[in-house]
Amino acid sequence: MPELRRDPVIGRWVIIASGRASRPKDFEHAVPRTLDNDCPFCGGQEVQTPPETFALRPAEGRPDGPGWQVRVVSNKYPALQIEGQLQRRGEGIYDKMNGIGAHEVVIESPDHHAELSDLSAEQIRQVLVAYRTRMQDLSGDRRFRYIQVFKNHGEAAGATLAHPHTQLIAMPIVPRSILDELSGCQQHYELKERCIFCDIIHQELGEGRRIVAENENFVSLAPFAPRFAYETWLLPKAHQSSFERIPDEHLDGLARAMRETLQRIHRLLERPAYNFVIHTSPCNVGRGAQPYHWHFEIMPKLTQVAGFEWGTGFYINPVAPEEAAAALREIDL
Amino acid sequence: MPELRRDPVIGRWVIIASGRASRPKDFEHAVPRTLDNDCPFCGGQEVQTPPETFALRPAEGRPDGPGWQVRVVSNKYPALQIEGQLQRRGEGIYDKMNGIGAHEVVIESPDHHAELSDLSAEQIRQVLVAYRTRMQDLSGDRRFRYIQVFKNHGEAAGATLAHPHTQLIAMPIVPRSILDELSGCQQHYELKERCIFCDIIHQELGEGRRIVAENENFVSLAPFAPRFAYETWLLPKAHQSSFERIPDEHLDGLARAMRETLQRIHRLLERPAYNFVIHTSPCNVGRGAQPYHWHFEIMPKLTQVAGFEWGTGFYINPVAPEEAAAALREIDL
Repeated sequence: MPELRRDPVIGRWVIIASGRASRPKDFEHAVPRTLDNDCPFCGGQEVQTPPETFALRPAEGRPDGPGWQVRVVSNKYPALQIEGQLQRRGEGIYDKMNGIGAHEVVIESPDHHAELSDLSAEQIRQVLVAYRTRMQDLSGDRRFRYIQVFKNHGEAAGATLAHPHTQLIAMPIVPRSILDELSGCQQHYELKERCIFCDIIHQELGEGRRIVAENENFVSLAPFAPRFAYETWLLPKAHQSSFERIPDEHLDGLARAMRETLQRIHRLLERPAYNFVIHTSPCNVGRGAQPYHWHFEIMPKLTQVAGFEWGTGFYINPVAPEEAAAALREIDL
Repeated sequence: MPELRRDPVIGRWVIIASGRASRPKDFEHAVPRTLDNDCPFCGGQEVQTPPETFALRPAEGRPDGPGWQVRVVSNKYPALQIEGQLQRRGEGIYDKMNGIGAHEVVIESPDHHAELSDLSAEQIRQVLVAYRTRMQDLSGDRRFRYIQVFKNHGEAAGATLAHPHTQLIAMPIVPRSILDELSGCQQHYELKERCIFCDIIHQELGEGRRIVAENENFVSLAPFAPRFAYETWLLPKAHQSSFERIPDEHLDGLARAMRETLQRIHRLLERPAYNFVIHTSPCNVGRGAQPYHWHFEIMPKLTQVAGFEWGTGFYINPVAPEEAAAALREIDL
């Protein structure tokens, strides 16, 4: 059973998952890599994965059979386990609990070689529906406080399987980065009675210099103080606290904004490794009170900058966001 | 001139250093790599570096000449610039200031191939003296709030020059990780009137399971909730808030503890890439008030785990710290 442990100084939780790779030599093989010709995520290979938790099958085939367009399965090597109770407990001055959670994989299409940005806007819309459906379902479990959607694309971004996929971890705590953002939002709200992300969007749309792409309901932009070169955020223009409550009529616009933003990044930076995460409101910790504004954060992995930054939380970015946004805007799609 | 910008939501400052690598193609060459036979840090190559700010020369040679054991020079490609005023200013809802600071390199020995742990305890002591002297000197500059000492060893840890060296950045803000630790220390102090690091050391020495090495004044241990496999902290046993005020009579013990800890890591993990940082009290922000406890954090770089973690601040560690400490303790030195 993995364990969740809390750092006593800064309150950050980590997952201690000893089963995954305990001896020094095992690191290269911690998560098995799969050759292209034996990929468990490809169409027709459904028996190689754990049972699906969700799928979109236009032709109405049977679960765990072929014919799907998007498919969600449990992770075969989960970071957290679904069965059990949290059993919060102390150990002297320390706090810990059982590593309870859900760890799922959203397979974005049956095609091994089609990256997310290569898909049609309609197919990306289906991927977004898969995220939303699984988040809605998992937030019904009272043990979970946060559902993290994240994508690792390319080896430099930590991907271990080439077939395009997104991951989703439901966890019994709210991660540190989200707590920091919630508290910043709360402070701004107390001062101004406005959402800080709404204020950011207002200023950015007025200035235009850091805008990457825009449509009727969504905007993507290079943030004012980005940690990474070409870091890009994608946000709903109107205030919306939770991704899982995104209305149906916005899904198409989001899919188009996502596709355009990723295509600009891929063309300019020649298909870089990248990560994205969805930042959204916590679940099951009291609704309505949080003045949060969900968004995607897309982070290309271009340099090995992580050393110093890990120790300090202080980042050096070699590309001004105004230059990054201008270069991304200028790409001909 | 680089610029310091503050994220309006979470208050994190970043350095925007546009000059370093602005076009996408430039990333591989952002910081020039130097071949082993043309290394500016080797003994005899002193003319290739900016002038030295400090050196230990037992034979009393001239500055910027040969004969040194440890040498500190300005970084040829500084992340922050030493000349100028901060000029704090707003830009709508955003805050920024000029990228003023110092960026220096501590060359740990004239020998290109001697890693820090290969040096004698006496030579490591001299490296520590170099850190302390430069920190004391730079904290006399009223523009600076924090002096960050950090080491990137190996390409996977972000090193761009093979010759063993440590870096030091004096900056006009206190980095986020330090602010978080200071605030955790402060909360614990208000509750208990004790230093939380002192409490941690007390519990760890009592239990012993996570201890890696120990001598009269220092202890190295695997922290209870480490982010990285084999992460190891090195702390003074007695309360000490600032590295730069470490007494002379402790330097020898620290050098021995450092050497033993690094050697255990290098033997067990077969000379891994790693980073270390010194976490210490801020300078020039009011002395005495902070119940902080300085320490080294040593982080081997074994896996490409950074993707998800960057977005969330939530880490998955595949090695329990009890197992890591036991394996490190068992190494025959």
